[in-house]
Amino acid sequence: MSQPIHLTQTVKKGGCAAKVAAHELRAILSRVQFPPQDSAVLVDGGLFDDAAIYKVTDDIALVQTLDFFTPIVDSPRIFGAVAAANSLSDVYAMGGTPKTAMAILAFPLATMENQVAVEVLQGASDIMTQAGVNFVGGHSIDDDTLKFGLSVTGFVNPQRVWSNAKAKEGDHLILTKALGTGTCMAALKRQEFTEADLQEPLESMMALNQILDLLSEDEESAIHTATDITGFGLLGHSQQMSQASQKKFVFNFKNLPLFEQTLQCLEKGFLTKAHGTNAQYTKDQCRLFDLTDTQKYVLCDPQTSGGLMLSISPEMSGQILEKLRSRFKKAALVGHVEAKGDVAVEVLG
Amino acid sequence: MSQPIHLTQTVKKGGCAAKVAAHELRAILSRVQFPPQDSAVLVDGGLFDDAAIYKVTDDIALVQTLDFFTPIVDSPRIFGAVAAANSLSDVYAMGGTPKTAMAILAFPLATMENQVAVEVLQGASDIMTQAGVNFVGGHSIDDDTLKFGLSVTGFVNPQRVWSNAKAKEGDHLILTKALGTGTCMAALKRQEFTEADLQEPLESMMALNQILDLLSEDEESAIHTATDITGFGLLGHSQQMSQASQKKFVFNFKNLPLFEQTLQCLEKGFLTKAHGTNAQYTKDQCRLFDLTDTQKYVLCDPQTSGGLMLSISPEMSGQILEKLRSRFKKAALVGHVEAKGDVAVEVLG
Repeated sequence: MSQPIHLTQTVKKGGCAAKVAAHELRAILSRVQFPPQDSAVLVDGGLFDDAAIYKVTDDIALVQTLDFFTPIVDSPRIFGAVAAANSLSDVYAMGGTPKTAMAILAFPLATMENQVAVEVLQGASDIMTQAGVNFVGGHSIDDDTLKFGLSVTGFVNPQRVWSNAKAKEGDHLILTKALGTGTCMAALKRQEFTEADLQEPLESMMALNQILDLLSEDEESAIHTATDITGFGLLGHSQQMSQASQKKFVFNFKNLPLFEQTLQCLEKGFLTKAHGTNAQYTKDQCRLFDLTDTQKYVLCDPQTSGGLMLSISPEMSGQILEKLRSRFKKAALVGHVEAKGDVAVEVLG
Repeated sequence: MSQPIHLTQTVKKGGCAAKVAAHELRAILSRVQFPPQDSAVLVDGGLFDDAAIYKVTDDIALVQTLDFFTPIVDSPRIFGAVAAANSLSDVYAMGGTPKTAMAILAFPLATMENQVAVEVLQGASDIMTQAGVNFVGGHSIDDDTLKFGLSVTGFVNPQRVWSNAKAKEGDHLILTKALGTGTCMAALKRQEFTEADLQEPLESMMALNQILDLLSEDEESAIHTATDITGFGLLGHSQQMSQASQKKFVFNFKNLPLFEQTLQCLEKGFLTKAHGTNAQYTKDQCRLFDLTDTQKYVLCDPQTSGGLMLSISPEMSGQILEKLRSRFKKAALVGHVEAKGDVAVEVLG
């Protein structure tokens, strides 16, 4: 039997750190004349990062998203599962239900045993099975480093899309998963921790952001909007949603759910490039009160397969939170929505 | 002004040669337990290579496909255009109309100017504009070698899908594009020819396989099935279609359309790995009469963004061919369909 492979040791840049930085991508995209869009495009995928909505009939729209990355964990099977859950998340974050998925697989045939590809695909298949998603094909390529992800199509009623622009003054903000996957996975790559130590963040990244099956129709209607917290961290994605809704989001740091090792990893300096770029990206529109440097890093920690942040009618937030906790143990009420102010986000220590 | 970049010199394996070989992929996929499929999956994407069909309503089904590869040409803009036309082709080959596309972009930020990415995206956008396709997002990654492609969704009436299984005895076989992109691009990579010498195959690879807009409803109904000729070459894809239809396909070599340089490139030995694997793949089910070695290589030449092969009622083939020639100058009647025999394909010299 061969030694177990440690995938994080096979790549230079793992997960979101391998993304083309937002400012660089924006500079590239601004110089391209894209095709004209027809009126069925209700939401554009924008900066290569969000799901797009395409109307098919009055009741049916497609939700489409595509994501792939290099390994951020050591086990092939966990990597496949995290990549799949992460790709599906954008559909859930729009209020949609994923239905079909195609694989994007770049595989180093010369340096990895085929069994690694089998396990990556099996990890992804297990998650697709859980989500009720049909795996309908994909494309594979012989490449120097392993990369994997999915192109996902789901369905949503066009009247019920959770666009970022719909947060209302007075809403409560609920976050479904704990923060800290960025720093915890950086510690894994630097071999400060093993996967056995990091069960909590690994399980969190493999958890589907599926929530609609837990809720009644009234509860569903009480959710005004949602986003998934991913590469730009809690601050970055909150800033985007707050600006789109023309509101101010106010968080209490002490209410934010964290993984057991999050603060410890940040204190030991396990940072990624995105911690810095996210801090830079949010510095003008986010005001932080009485926070330590470590706490500030939590807010900028880039999440892989992070939780949903929901903006909810305050009278319904309690019962919704209770239901969410049956699946997401660390789900928490983390803040609320105020009228537009001079900044998009405030965080109180 | 910097020197023009020669993309083929930046990659070890170009285009289809970078694919995971079919037998290797089959060995991997056979060991994965994929999720169960619901009854709406009318056609599965199989070996990561064909389009899938997913039924939405009685009249509407999605056609989905995903493809990406490393540069097979030198100019970024031509590469983007070829990659886009190639990705869209699978939707046309099912009788569908592509509607949305998401980009897969792996880009070497450290070694290539951003302008290269701009041009790749512009080349793809020009083709999407021509096809009336909405560009709705995608994902980009910082990587060692450039790769680009699209995940495409189109629509088709579920009753009018061109599945491979519908060729009828007596049908005429029409091929819309000339053969030889594999050997011509191998000659380009080895710098035997420049792009200026290879205008014909380059333009052919950038041409959309869109044909339904040329045809009347009667003509459309006369097309029993279609496939696009890609990595497995004329023989490989013909064998697949003939076997699926339980028929025998008979071709006349002298009727096959070729690019001006195809025979010359093959005679000079510009071959890819796929020439050999395709010959191996087809040796038991394809019988070749009175052909030279060079002619045999034509039949196994892996195509990128190759033509459609249509199986058509014989009484309509003449008028359909005439209409196709208004767009595809080298479209030709190349063979016919016979009852099932002891081999799937015969080629007469």
